Amino acid sequence: MALDRLKQAASHVTGIGRAPHPLDPLVETEIEYAVSIIRKQYSHVAFNAITLFEPPKAIMLKWVKDPEHTPRPNRVADVVCTGKGSKVFDGLVDLTDGKIIKWDETPDVQPLITMEDLQIVESVVRKDPKVIEQCGIIGIPPEDMHKVYCDPWTIGYDERFGSKVRLQQALMYYRPHPDDSQYTYPLDFTPIYNSDTQEIIHIDVPPIRRPVNKAPPNNYHAAAIEKEGGFRTDLKPINITQPEGVSFSLDGRVISWQNWKLHIGFNYREGLVLSNITFNDKGTERDTFWRLSLAEMVVPYGNPEHPHQRKHAFDLGEYGGGYMTNSLSLGCDCKGAIHYMDAAFVNKAGAATTIKNAVCIHEEDAGILFKHTDFRDDSVTVTRARKLVISHIFTAANYEYCVYWIFHQDGTIQLEIKLTGILNTFPCNEGEDLHGWGTEVYPGVNAHNHQHLFCMRIDPNVDGPNNTVFMVDAARGSGEVGSAENKYGNAFYALKTKLATPEQAQTDYNGATSRTWEMCNESKINPYSKKPVSYKLVSREVPELLPKPGGLVWKRAGFARHAVHVTKYDDGQLHPAGRHVPQTSGEVSQGIPQWISENPNADITNTDVVLWHTFGITHFPSPEDFPVMPAEPMTLLLRPRNFFTRNPCLDVPPSYCSVPSGVRQGGTLVDKLSRMAFGGDKSGTQECCSK
Amino acid sequence: MALDRLKQAASHVTGIGRAPHPLDPLVETEIEYAVSIIRKQYSHVAFNAITLFEPPKAIMLKWVKDPEHTPRPNRVADVVCTGKGSKVFDGLVDLTDGKIIKWDETPDVQPLITMEDLQIVESVVRKDPKVIEQCGIIGIPPEDMHKVYCDPWTIGYDERFGSKVRLQQALMYYRPHPDDSQYTYPLDFTPIYNSDTQEIIHIDVPPIRRPVNKAPPNNYHAAAIEKEGGFRTDLKPINITQPEGVSFSLDGRVISWQNWKLHIGFNYREGLVLSNITFNDKGTERDTFWRLSLAEMVVPYGNPEHPHQRKHAFDLGEYGGGYMTNSLSLGCDCKGAIHYMDAAFVNKAGAATTIKNAVCIHEEDAGILFKHTDFRDDSVTVTRARKLVISHIFTAANYEYCVYWIFHQDGTIQLEIKLTGILNTFPCNEGEDLHGWGTEVYPGVNAHNHQHLFCMRIDPNVDGPNNTVFMVDAARGSGEVGSAENKYGNAFYALKTKLATPEQAQTDYNGATSRTWEMCNESKINPYSKKPVSYKLVSREVPELLPKPGGLVWKRAGFARHAVHVTKYDDGQLHPAGRHVPQTSGEVSQGIPQWISENPNADITNTDVVLWHTFGITHFPSPEDFPVMPAEPMTLLLRPRNFFTRNPCLDVPPSYCSVPSGVRQGGTLVDKLSRMAFGGDKSGTQECCSK
Ligand SMILES: [Co+2]
Ligand SMILES: [Co+2]
Repeated sequence: MALDRLKQAASHVTGIGRAPHPLDPLVETEIEYAVSIIRKQYSHVAFNAITLFEPPKAIMLKWVKDPEHTPRPNRVADVVCTGKGSKVFDGLVDLTDGKIIKWDETPDVQPLITMEDLQIVESVVRKDPKVIEQCGIIGIPPEDMHKVYCDPWTIGYDERFGSKVRLQQALMYYRPHPDDSQYTYPLDFTPIYNSDTQEIIHIDVPPIRRPVNKAPPNNYHAAAIEKEGGFRTDLKPINITQPEGVSFSLDGRVISWQNWKLHIGFNYREGLVLSNITFNDKGTERDTFWRLSLAEMVVPYGNPEHPHQRKHAFDLGEYGGGYMTNSLSLGCDCKGAIHYMDAAFVNKAGAATTIKNAVCIHEEDAGILFKHTDFRDDSVTVTRARKLVISHIFTAANYEYCVYWIFHQDGTIQLEIKLTGILNTFPCNEGEDLHGWGTEVYPGVNAHNHQHLFCMRIDPNVDGPNNTVFMVDAARGSGEVGSAENKYGNAFYALKTKLATPEQAQTDYNGATSRTWEMCNESKINPYSKKPVSYKLVSREVPELLPKPGGLVWKRAGFARHAVHVTKYDDGQLHPAGRHVPQTSGEVSQGIPQWISENPNADITNTDVVLWHTFGITHFPSPEDFPVMPAEPMTLLLRPRNFFTRNPCLDVPPSYCSVPSGVRQGGTLVDKLSRMAFGGDKSGTQECCSK
Repeated sequence: MALDRLKQAASHVTGIGRAPHPLDPLVETEIEYAVSIIRKQYSHVAFNAITLFEPPKAIMLKWVKDPEHTPRPNRVADVVCTGKGSKVFDGLVDLTDGKIIKWDETPDVQPLITMEDLQIVESVVRKDPKVIEQCGIIGIPPEDMHKVYCDPWTIGYDERFGSKVRLQQALMYYRPHPDDSQYTYPLDFTPIYNSDTQEIIHIDVPPIRRPVNKAPPNNYHAAAIEKEGGFRTDLKPINITQPEGVSFSLDGRVISWQNWKLHIGFNYREGLVLSNITFNDKGTERDTFWRLSLAEMVVPYGNPEHPHQRKHAFDLGEYGGGYMTNSLSLGCDCKGAIHYMDAAFVNKAGAATTIKNAVCIHEEDAGILFKHTDFRDDSVTVTRARKLVISHIFTAANYEYCVYWIFHQDGTIQLEIKLTGILNTFPCNEGEDLHGWGTEVYPGVNAHNHQHLFCMRIDPNVDGPNNTVFMVDAARGSGEVGSAENKYGNAFYALKTKLATPEQAQTDYNGATSRTWEMCNESKINPYSKKPVSYKLVSREVPELLPKPGGLVWKRAGFARHAVHVTKYDDGQLHPAGRHVPQTSGEVSQGIPQWISENPNADITNTDVVLWHTFGITHFPSPEDFPVMPAEPMTLLLRPRNFFTRNPCLDVPPSYCSVPSGVRQGGTLVDKLSRMAFGGDKSGTQECCSK
């Protein structure tokens, strides 16, 4: 029976009855099979998460190099269950052998809040007499309670309530009409919800009351825009088509595109997980990264007034970037020729559920890849770039995060994140002094200062798993102006600091020195430059964690204390703020700080390491961000340096190429569709061909 | 006669015989008319530059507000001429009145090196006996002198030769075959060329000699790639078309696109100049920037060995970003529906010359503009973004700079620069210690460390010319953890420092505090936020100038000493490193340092100011950059903050919009062309419509 179900599961992945890749996410049948195994022994639990337990890296490294002659690792489900009394169970279910291999009740932890956990609170809040009373105080009569809404965040941590009871804080809103944006009508009190008993156990009421906003709605839906004069009609279509199809191919979830090859995973927490990323260097598939993901986030808000300190969402660890993922739409979220992937999860009751079109894969034109003109004779080569974009979008209550993993032909991997959605808001009275902790973005609407800090987990595999991280700063040469060795003062060089221990590797950003971090393989030397092969982390949006050392956020979000941490690889270390994040006190700090403190002086040179990079933006809201925020982009690059012996994308056909000797070698115009904007004269096209 | 010529000139601009916009570049007939006027009085001069002398700002501000009732400013040509004996003449010719209004011989300066100046040196070098002798020493026989090439940079500054004689340094190369990349074969000596007498006056010979490289060619032209296996054939076309045309319109050189309106100028030095940039805010054309341009650059190299200190090209001031501009090709440099603009210049002999297709104007899809999903019911609005790109590309000997001015619908202006082309190289012997000043990117080829530092001239006009600049840092709130005012330590705010004088406004970048600079109009307060309307400079690639204080580059490139300088507006202050840059000693520092020193304590608050921003990258070469460099992007944003009362792009029609009440308001799929990558299932399309 187990084998049958697995075969069935496998066929879901590949469509041709093959066994799944060991890193493939669990499919619906696997999830349901895990549930059935658990149910036999633990019939009363509810399901918080079931996801692939990734095989140990040592085993996987062998398997990917020789899948034919290496035993296929068993499929194992990593399970989190909850039980009455805020009980939490962590388990592992071997799906290949059909048995539970680990089952522990874990005390004093709270697993993440699922979408189902979120959905239920609003109806409880609306019926609670004390909430109705508070609504009355600020001007909402009991008969209007159906117009009251809440975003029921996890409580984060509140020392009055601790970690033993599963709690949520209901950020309260009002909608005059069901289609009105509630963020124009935030309420000033915060009920605390016990999700075990489904009761409101406390309400935080501020010392100064703020009646519900009387300003007119501030909406961006079609009816509202029509009323203000309507949408603009002058945007002519831009059509993007790929009549011959896409340039990538898929073998299960292993994608091949240009010289890149990688496995596309997905889980409820990190969302996209990219593994075993290789680059074909003239016939040799070279390892670059073993695994890349967004592993954690924290969004601390900067208003010190109680209870706003609790607003510091760990969107991945407390809610799940996979769980909150949007089902994407062709032509809306993605343009061109798209391949989608679905994502399967478990619901509370143990049924498998699927988000259709959770992952979008497509190509984009990327402008000029390289160009050079010889000024003597105008001989020129110009080659256009293409990029592969693997993306998902998740909605964290008010905010949306659009996550784009972008592969470039030159060996660069880019992570781009666009922030959009709606500001978290709090009411303010007319003329109220906001003390600089927020901005009145609309009458009566205070949007608090906040940061969006992301933690990227980078498991480098630069020509093999044994790597060393260097911090690299641009530095002035020694020798003062006028000295023999630096007469004109122009000497500068790349100062490389080897990060030898996890303690020493806790490093911060320095914009003035254009600081980067290089992941090197010191055993593999570039034959030309004589420098170790490497990939360089180039990240320029790297603010400091603004909540102070010793404070609540600093304690709970230990990963955000430094731009870079480096740890020795450990199969169990995936989550920068710990496995179960809600209601951690930060004493001790879960995740990275704990791992480092266990062996601060471990040798992390020339060994299997993980680099944890925290980056993001500090957001001081302004009215432009409201009622919905134009996407704010953020980007970082992983760039090959001394990895190749030359530009690795010279194999991309040029748009145009001529040489001094006059031999026309590439005079065929690739793009026959581009046109002059204002018709008539097509001389541009002719010139390109006949240059 | 003057009037006739001018009418003719005007008709060249508009095509309908209208007078040119006062900021329109001079057209060919105007240039030739200026030449004819000068020739009458000064028959023996050669022409270095003739460009529009922009009317005084005070006059222009009046004119643009009411062109019908304001006298049209005269057309005036700004002229630089040279004469025998390294003489330089600066003149102004009033084209409307047909007369010279200023003519000065300027002593001890050298105007920029034109393309013609560049072209001539190679033939002189090849015939010079001392150069032939040096070639012989490193292994090039006299019969191979036709295989010797040079990039004849300006000398920059060399204290042995001063500023009185016009000099170039010939960076020497060799090509085994005319189509071979010469940068694989740099030569180790540097002739100095007197462009007045057209002679080699000196050769800098290094103490250690380096024979000409014996490594095989490292080429990227089609023949070379074919020999190595050929171009890849798996890139399927991406077609970008605009069947209904573009969404912008042009009135002469004034472009209107979405809510934006601006004038597109161009000159031989800065290249693109964007003026009188307004944004239509619900019917009101609001001023944002009076004038934006890239005003200067410096590319200091980091090898302290003589004569490499002279390698610190001011590409705009010493050669001209306009002069070096590429003639662009449809489908190669730009894709989609393109509008090109030509650029007219003068040549040495006084004839007008034109670069066809110097400026490219086109639209691009720009992904998601904004999106929000209500997690309760999946009601969603998603709107796609469009951007307008105004660009040119210039070739500075080995390097190419692709300059993209990008206008976004949300009121953001972005400057993106892509660096591509070829590394400047120097030979190295086998096993030679490069001392960290460069990287061996190919056997025998040493690419020196360098910076690319750009100076952007920002003339803000934020709801009028009287603006104030603030430096903004993210700062932690006062009150230690545990204190009443900051119990949890999470307080933070935007610390704003008013830049009140030019001296105080000399400010550096700080990545840790996410430092930005805000250009505010303190007389205009946002009605919601109560903060002054502003535009914020968000720039994250801001390295320090690495050449040391007091050294040659620091003296000559005073503008690069700080990330930001602010000066009081002055019509005469356009060039950060001075009007004539070649062979300036840096004593005193021309341009910004000089202007500031003239009145360091001027009041620059609530007045007409200019913000000068220096940004760029520090480039430590690696073999991946060779033999041609994959484009490296760099970007900065000018973002409206507290300028609008709400998101200014809500007028963009959504791709999809649904509301909780279930009224389908925008259920029409805009994009009917996007497809599933692997055929068959078109459910994606259906779902989008029927959601
Ligand atoms: Co934000
Ligand atoms: Co460079």
